[in-house]
Amino acid sequence: MSEITPKQQFVSLISNAKKILLLSHENPDADAIGSLLGLLIVLRRLKKEAIAICPDDLPSNLQFLPFASMLKKDLENQDLVINIDCGNVALDKLGYKMEDHTLKIVVKTLQGSLKKENLSVFLTAEDYDVVIVLDAPDLERISYFYQEHPELFYRSVVVNIDHHPTNTYFGKVNLVDLTATSTSEILIGLIEALEKEEKLIDKAVAHCLLAGIIGDTGSFQNSNTTPKSLTCAAQLLAAGADQQQIVQNLFKTKSLSTLRLWGRVLQQIQEDRQLRFVLGRANKTDFQESNAKEEEISGVIDELLRSLPDYDLVILLSEKEKGVAGSLRAINPTVDCLEIAKTFGGGGHRGAAGFLVKEGSIEEVAQQVVAKVREYQAKRLGLNLVPNSTPPVISSEKPTS
Amino acid sequence: MSEITPKQQFVSLISNAKKILLLSHENPDADAIGSLLGLLIVLRRLKKEAIAICPDDLPSNLQFLPFASMLKKDLENQDLVINIDCGNVALDKLGYKMEDHTLKIVVKTLQGSLKKENLSVFLTAEDYDVVIVLDAPDLERISYFYQEHPELFYRSVVVNIDHHPTNTYFGKVNLVDLTATSTSEILIGLIEALEKEEKLIDKAVAHCLLAGIIGDTGSFQNSNTTPKSLTCAAQLLAAGADQQQIVQNLFKTKSLSTLRLWGRVLQQIQEDRQLRFVLGRANKTDFQESNAKEEEISGVIDELLRSLPDYDLVILLSEKEKGVAGSLRAINPTVDCLEIAKTFGGGGHRGAAGFLVKEGSIEEVAQQVVAKVREYQAKRLGLNLVPNSTPPVISSEKPTS
Repeated sequence: MSEITPKQQFVSLISNAKKILLLSHENPDADAIGSLLGLLIVLRRLKKEAIAICPDDLPSNLQFLPFASMLKKDLENQDLVINIDCGNVALDKLGYKMEDHTLKIVVKTLQGSLKKENLSVFLTAEDYDVVIVLDAPDLERISYFYQEHPELFYRSVVVNIDHHPTNTYFGKVNLVDLTATSTSEILIGLIEALEKEEKLIDKAVAHCLLAGIIGDTGSFQNSNTTPKSLTCAAQLLAAGADQQQIVQNLFKTKSLSTLRLWGRVLQQIQEDRQLRFVLGRANKTDFQESNAKEEEISGVIDELLRSLPDYDLVILLSEKEKGVAGSLRAINPTVDCLEIAKTFGGGGHRGAAGFLVKEGSIEEVAQQVVAKVREYQAKRLGLNLVPNSTPPVISSEKPTS
Repeated sequence: MSEITPKQQFVSLISNAKKILLLSHENPDADAIGSLLGLLIVLRRLKKEAIAICPDDLPSNLQFLPFASMLKKDLENQDLVINIDCGNVALDKLGYKMEDHTLKIVVKTLQGSLKKENLSVFLTAEDYDVVIVLDAPDLERISYFYQEHPELFYRSVVVNIDHHPTNTYFGKVNLVDLTATSTSEILIGLIEALEKEEKLIDKAVAHCLLAGIIGDTGSFQNSNTTPKSLTCAAQLLAAGADQQQIVQNLFKTKSLSTLRLWGRVLQQIQEDRQLRFVLGRANKTDFQESNAKEEEISGVIDELLRSLPDYDLVILLSEKEKGVAGSLRAINPTVDCLEIAKTFGGGGHRGAAGFLVKEGSIEEVAQQVVAKVREYQAKRLGLNLVPNSTPPVISSEKPTS
């Protein structure tokens, strides 16, 4: 007799479950929210008591998704439990009354006294038959929700649906497909397996899942794009997903302050042609004059600066509240940004890395970073830098044509 | 007996043809070049004497396509034909000799003289069995090639493969599919119809055709994206197309001068919040200081300025050699850019229009355009503008938060 597959386990679990809890990770992206909402709509359609929790605020660019308002940040209707460690104290009786919206509980003792330290108070969630964790490589990514409700993960069957290579297989049932572009893509097959007569992937579900696929593939521009992700997208588009609304919200929405800030960065780009790198920067004045928040700087490096084919890498420095933040991106894939970022206490990957220098002005950090990158590039390209020369200066002049 | 379909006609024509000429339109885009090269590779594989002509320079961002160097700008090995209208002149004999690489032809007369005006000289192309025109709505789009070789289009069977709604069905065989995103998409089915044992859509062909689809759908972000285009893309990706190289070349390649120019435009964006429009501008100094060519301005409106959700339309003015060029884009789809552009002698569509004002400084044109847009928007939004007020000034100040 052949063994039951995880997919069959999933179908059987859902069929038998009455109460289902859906969870995704902190800092949610389009795939986290898309998969959460897509599956929530399906389970509600199957008459399950399902709720979906995202342990973070819903980003404004994802609020367009259908039924986004059904997402909760935490469980509702939790029970309050008060445990009193009585030790040797002999109890007499317990009484309570309501007084002006105040519940007053009195514990009378026969002998000895209870102390405040003997009391422990916590909230307890109702039980769920199944807890489905979406798009999270491990339970820590569910953030405070996991810390506050650990009991839920012991008392329920945990289903882990994910596509990240770092997934720790923390579930009782693990539907982890590392070849999938996104958790939303994995859900298509799982939802179809739940179908009986009625099609479950309707317009709303298709819209949510397509948002997940488009988000995680960068609108089919990232290197993870597969033939399967494109056929899945075709299926969802045919089922009624509004691809224009998704693209508009995920990629084509910028504020005037963002564009003004990016303008200031672009206009001041400095380059080192010989050592093949460029440096962009945004100081406090740039943020203030463009009326932009700190996080508005982030897109300019991937959307624009990284598109310079004649350079090997790009650095972006920005003066933030906590210090000078640096981002590094490899344009030439043989450059190792992580090696450079580590020098400044940072982390990341070869292709994209970052760091935060808490001390020093942006000018000082720029000099240090430029010196380090020059050294790195000179070695890589086999060029000689004059030792002990004056501090490196790179050009922001109009290039001579 | 059922009638033969255009596709069957196409297959039969190609099977019987020995010499095939492929053509596409001037100002070629990824679909023009992708379809041209894709079909060229297939026909060569089928041992046809096929040549492909693009009546324009190959844009630098398309030179990455396989076999791009096989494209010609005009026919080679053309015959020179000299017609002499002799009228009443009686001819004696014709002689010729070669002298130092000069062919000297002498026409002796018995009575009367020939005049220079009686001479007409032209080049004549060798005959082709089939001329296939790709991605061109009409023959005028083939530009000088059609004007210089009209005889080719009478002597050969013309096949018209296109997806533009304005197609004039100029071919003997018309394979026009208005539901296709691109000519490259149409070619997939046609090439498959040519297959016998061997698969014809190999890695190189798939790469060319995918470039066409990605180009014409804006990497599946345009509203013309269909489920079919996504499944076609999946098929081509599975056949070995290098989607990363395509995306990199079509969308992620910018020069430093372009980014610096865009920076200058973005930093100076002006807005009219009440009337919900923004104005960007680039004057001669901006082009000079950023060392950018005139055409480098074009992407900033579609890639960035159009992404402002809080405005209804965006205007970009740039000071060029021939005058002040204006581009208009609707952010709110109910805005009619064409109506505004027409006031300045321009053209286009509702969503995207442009004009060129040959007289006047960019400041003067800006004032006129802003006045016109204010009037248009005030009417649309039902707001009152104070008549005969001072010339409209719009704000480029840091917005008050």
